[in-house]
Amino acid sequence: MLARGIFAKMLRVFTQVEVINMCEANAYLRQKGGEDELLLEMVDRVIPQEDGILLEDIFGKRKLVKARIVEMALVDHKIILEKE
Amino acid sequence: MLARGIFAKMLRVFTQVEVINMCEANAYLRQKGGEDELLLEMVDRVIPQEDGILLEDIFGKRKLVKARIVEMALVDHKIILEKE
Repeated sequence: MLARGIFAKMLRVFTQVEVINMCEANAYLRQKGGEDELLLEMVDRVIPQEDGILLEDIFGKRKLVKARIVEMALVDHKIILEKE
Repeated sequence: MLARGIFAKMLRVFTQVEVINMCEANAYLRQKGGEDELLLEMVDRVIPQEDGILLEDIFGKRKLVKARIVEMALVDHKIILEKE
């Protein structure tokens, strides 16, 4: 019974980590001084458009940013944009 | 002791899943017919440059592709490029 309890607990932790570990990223706007200002968290989709970069988070919230992509570092969950 | 053994086993599974679940993506080149041809697997970094898109996989292997980004879908682990 004890083992089963621990198994269930580990499974819950495991499931939570799966959710936390979704592969979304945070989008930042790089400032002239080199600092990065957070634009949008938990970004799922990045779609370049004529008038900027369209960011969509995992909840479907969208933000169009007049910028260009500097770099995307997926393992670090970072999208860096810069004003054009 | 049994509980400790199960705990250790779960921890190993958990650690493996962490590794498998790294947030790299696969890069595809969209064909005119609409099909996607695999360009590079396990891409970590995407860096737009003047002469194309520089892709770098998690092992540091790089590929410069004369293309533009159509869409990046991070939760689906997909980067779609298209010839300019």
